[in-house]
Amino acid sequence: MTTDDFAALQPKNAPRGSEAFEAKRAAILQAFQDKVPPEYRLPRDIIENAPLDVSGIPATCGILTADEIAITQDYDAFGLAAAIATRKLTALDVAVAFAKRAIVAHQLTCCLTQWFMDEAVAQAKQLDAYLAEHGKPIGPLHGVPVSIKDHIPIAGTASSMGCLSSIVLDKQDCQMVGILRRLGAVFYCKTNQPQTLMHLETDSLWGRTINPFNTHLSAGGSTGGEAALIAMKGSVLGVGTDIGGSIRGPAAFCGIYGFKPTSYTLPMQGFLTPPSLAELNVLCSTGPMCRSLRDMDLFMRGILAYQPHLLDPRLVPIPWTGLQTAPKKVLKIGIIENDGFVEPQPPVKRALAWARKLLTDSQNAGLVEVKPFRPFGAAEAWCKIRRMYWPDGGSGSRGAILSTGEPLHPLSEWIWKDAESSGMLTAADVSNMRGDRDDFRLAFARDWEEQDVDVVLGPAYVGPACAHDTAFTWTYTSLYNFVDYPGVVFPTPIVSQAGERYDSGYTPLSDACEQAKQLWEDTNFEGAPINLQLVARKYHDNELFGALAKLKGILELQ
Amino acid sequence: MTTDDFAALQPKNAPRGSEAFEAKRAAILQAFQDKVPPEYRLPRDIIENAPLDVSGIPATCGILTADEIAITQDYDAFGLAAAIATRKLTALDVAVAFAKRAIVAHQLTCCLTQWFMDEAVAQAKQLDAYLAEHGKPIGPLHGVPVSIKDHIPIAGTASSMGCLSSIVLDKQDCQMVGILRRLGAVFYCKTNQPQTLMHLETDSLWGRTINPFNTHLSAGGSTGGEAALIAMKGSVLGVGTDIGGSIRGPAAFCGIYGFKPTSYTLPMQGFLTPPSLAELNVLCSTGPMCRSLRDMDLFMRGILAYQPHLLDPRLVPIPWTGLQTAPKKVLKIGIIENDGFVEPQPPVKRALAWARKLLTDSQNAGLVEVKPFRPFGAAEAWCKIRRMYWPDGGSGSRGAILSTGEPLHPLSEWIWKDAESSGMLTAADVSNMRGDRDDFRLAFARDWEEQDVDVVLGPAYVGPACAHDTAFTWTYTSLYNFVDYPGVVFPTPIVSQAGERYDSGYTPLSDACEQAKQLWEDTNFEGAPINLQLVARKYHDNELFGALAKLKGILELQ
Repeated sequence: MTTDDFAALQPKNAPRGSEAFEAKRAAILQAFQDKVPPEYRLPRDIIENAPLDVSGIPATCGILTADEIAITQDYDAFGLAAAIATRKLTALDVAVAFAKRAIVAHQLTCCLTQWFMDEAVAQAKQLDAYLAEHGKPIGPLHGVPVSIKDHIPIAGTASSMGCLSSIVLDKQDCQMVGILRRLGAVFYCKTNQPQTLMHLETDSLWGRTINPFNTHLSAGGSTGGEAALIAMKGSVLGVGTDIGGSIRGPAAFCGIYGFKPTSYTLPMQGFLTPPSLAELNVLCSTGPMCRSLRDMDLFMRGILAYQPHLLDPRLVPIPWTGLQTAPKKVLKIGIIENDGFVEPQPPVKRALAWARKLLTDSQNAGLVEVKPFRPFGAAEAWCKIRRMYWPDGGSGSRGAILSTGEPLHPLSEWIWKDAESSGMLTAADVSNMRGDRDDFRLAFARDWEEQDVDVVLGPAYVGPACAHDTAFTWTYTSLYNFVDYPGVVFPTPIVSQAGERYDSGYTPLSDACEQAKQLWEDTNFEGAPINLQLVARKYHDNELFGALAKLKGILELQ
Repeated sequence: MTTDDFAALQPKNAPRGSEAFEAKRAAILQAFQDKVPPEYRLPRDIIENAPLDVSGIPATCGILTADEIAITQDYDAFGLAAAIATRKLTALDVAVAFAKRAIVAHQLTCCLTQWFMDEAVAQAKQLDAYLAEHGKPIGPLHGVPVSIKDHIPIAGTASSMGCLSSIVLDKQDCQMVGILRRLGAVFYCKTNQPQTLMHLETDSLWGRTINPFNTHLSAGGSTGGEAALIAMKGSVLGVGTDIGGSIRGPAAFCGIYGFKPTSYTLPMQGFLTPPSLAELNVLCSTGPMCRSLRDMDLFMRGILAYQPHLLDPRLVPIPWTGLQTAPKKVLKIGIIENDGFVEPQPPVKRALAWARKLLTDSQNAGLVEVKPFRPFGAAEAWCKIRRMYWPDGGSGSRGAILSTGEPLHPLSEWIWKDAESSGMLTAADVSNMRGDRDDFRLAFARDWEEQDVDVVLGPAYVGPACAHDTAFTWTYTSLYNFVDYPGVVFPTPIVSQAGERYDSGYTPLSDACEQAKQLWEDTNFEGAPINLQLVARKYHDNELFGALAKLKGILELQ
């Protein structure tokens, strides 16, 4: 093991597997580190003596130049593309800056699975040459570095589902990456995700991704590598996937923007698919993670302009109007105090109060109408979805992990728990389960109509980022996978403080609610950012963005 | 049995069931006939000596007045609604005319399962009163009689899946019927469908629906009752469902218009659902059957104006532009000569030649670009879909039929044949099957893009209506269920003639192709109308109608 030269901060180790597995794992990590020049390696003492909040280290560690710090901190993707198009910056300088910052970020948060600066530099040089020759950018993302979740194939890289047996070499770009490439994106890394892809924490054979703002905490999952990387300013725009909160959870844990569209809005053709049979019941969705509303809009408009539905007819070709969508004169916005199942932890309640105060300010009276909103059936949905993810009882996923001697991580065993005893379902069982799911969806839609709102604002998670191995209660995100409604999470100015307590009048809504309180009391959440989530009806992704455009000024969105 | 007083023409009887079943069946038919006044019953000799073509009898039998004949023959739904709105006709006169013609049509074709003239008269009187009071119609279908397929619930009627055990009383309108009622539609009958709902013939315990133009032939299925009723002018607008051709096949067999939208375009919430688990793999779709393009458009616009997706979030809320959809400057239209699997029978080839001649006429050169089109994988799709309809091997459907002593009809046994030996699949099998289906869909879409067409014109069936119990080869419709593309069938001026023969150079493309030739030679198809089918990409229902608007003049559409 020479990986001691180069290792990511790991406050809590994962279990060890068989010798054969650990040897393969070591070889993978060695191959990774062999690509990292010595001058991009952090001194050991920085890692060993890291503070609770490591987010500032990339700018102070001395590895990045002042220009590289500015390039990585001062723009969103839209701004970077404009700076490159107007030749204020070169694609090469931008690629180098982000590649460097990403590898520094990795050493502090374990956010990457692959890093390929050389390829990014070559791609950036080609783009600079193109701009010089043609006088105009190749596309709206010309020269913008885009980080990609590990299970999304990029030609010449490997992809995985978060376990060793699932690693495959990618001969070609998947549809999404092919379009991003044509839009001018530069690829330079792939990002970490959990074993099974089904934890709301990111812990895999590549290591455990750490929250940049509090190393005791998780970066969230399954797209936790992206979230930590973007929060560390090692990426400006990333691509994630979400079947229970896997974009929104980590984006919220790390204080960035994240969008889970309605399923079959963006192309997933060619993505490695879940090892479970989850998609018999609940569809996965892919979407952007980034620093601003306009970047999410840019991403959507760019991808959909290529009409991906012509090559993947599963995609629903609703034209993208995004932030330009005409908002309703008075936007009816429901605010969730709690979902009737789990009371949010104190700083989330503060964030909700912050939002409610702004939205109900008398100067916004003609713009928004604020109502309390209680989502239909949160407890029921959570119970159902936990079973519906695993129509085989989890055996496929478990077998895939164990086949190489890989150890089961605690959250893997936890996620199968409720479904395991049912074993492999029959086709009739699946049909009945889907009928049950559809009945829930119809009831949820009726209830939404009765509550008469356009969009709903609520928690993105029961609390801020959680402590490692305790991401147990994702009801505030998975509910919208269960009904397949689009959701955006966005940062607020609220940050978790030491010593915050539950209201004295708190009474638990459920066992899960009590557990959330216990977890709150067991952990120091200091410094963890708080996001909120805005949700719209299924297929109303444009209306969601129209609402966000309207709320931008009120809620201080970027 | 006093049903001898009142019986529908039945050239070929179905098998008999147990005594208990036959007693219940007789009671159902008795309850039906008890509602029919003597003056609406056809003389026995008309039924016993019916000619091959019974379509003219309603106008000559003396039961309808001259006005009633005009009301039922001279309008489409759009025209009827206009005549009622302008008080040229009353809703009452229209309801009486269609109710009378429907019950006459039933005696000649066995197209109904229920007939409720009294309720229709009451409803029409209310609508007339509304118009008198408010001075304007209640909606765009004010006073238009709409016939409904039996498995679609109307409050106060019964619904079924075509077998005795499936009959249930409807306490409330399903979503579609509720909207139609608010649009002003008058309900007066429900229409026949086959045992299992999965035959392309209509043969149930209510009897076998006969083709109005040739009693040797089938009216098609599963929405065969609708098709025969509309062809007999006993309805101007009906609602069907289609999971393999069940709107398009019967519409083509009977020479009317029929539209299968992309799935989840129109609401099916509350419909009785298939007894099979077919929808794990192939989705059913509902749509209109009628006399004109503009009636299909009126139907779509009317239903979708109620935003049914708000109460059923499965529905895809693509705004309806229909016939108003701006067509492409030059419409690229592919014409199918054959699907590479089964050569169409002679009159279908004549219809294709007729269309090709008109479309390639030099005066249309700037409007349309005609190309040959060979659909991808027709034989493969047929093989796959036959298994995918029955993830339980057909056991659920078979059990439901046999549970009451009902006899299995020949086409029921035939439809399960390929899936039966696999028995009940597991969830993993279903997941793999769906993966296989999606791979086919992606390949089909790629191939369509490579052939570079906007719409495809081809057969609606391998031939004209087929002889009873021989609807074996629906590949020309089921292919578009397998890929979920929208399709419209429309009448042509071509009619089957006696003595038509296959080309002398014919060589079979497959065993199914040889079987189709044998069936052609075994039967007299004289007088059977020929429809063609126009298909567009999934979710391109508006573009399909835009193309139809463009083709209306060229192909002499109504």
